Amino acid sequence: MKARVHVMLKDGVLDPQGAAVAHALGALGFDGVEGVRQGKVIDLELVETDTAAAEARVREMCEKLLANTVIERYDIEIG
Amino acid sequence: MKARVHVMLKDGVLDPQGAAVAHALGALGFDGVEGVRQGKVIDLELVETDTAAAEARVREMCEKLLANTVIERYDIEIG
Repeated sequence: MKARVHVMLKDGVLDPQGAAVAHALGALGFDGVEGVRQGKVIDLELVETDTAAAEARVREMCEKLLANTVIERYDIEIG
Repeated sequence: MKARVHVMLKDGVLDPQGAAVAHALGALGFDGVEGVRQGKVIDLELVETDTAAAEARVREMCEKLLANTVIERYDIEIG
């Protein structure tokens, strides 16, 4: 079973990577970009076959390792 | 209009970040993880209101800046 996790900085937390991308896009002539936020995506291949169990397990992984929940939020897609 | 871009290393390209996450999950006792790939997610807020035009624009951004298409693939979600 596949799971995809997005880890993004929470709103209000400064995102220097996103700001750098926004700046670079402007320098390349891409106008019309009002905001950029950059985060991580983690694709997991799990042995687990039960959707609810897989989601619970991945949530635990996020809390313990994948996200720093003080400054980051995460969301999980299963399947 | 919002756009989300995923940039992942192509299959077959060594992913040391993913390998590090897989190793760390194992060390924390999370078994049943068969594979981990880590990539980037970039959320863009665009002035453009036409879906097709926005996608074309974001594709150009990917080719020129956001992805290294020699080793990375990208996909674009609009809206």
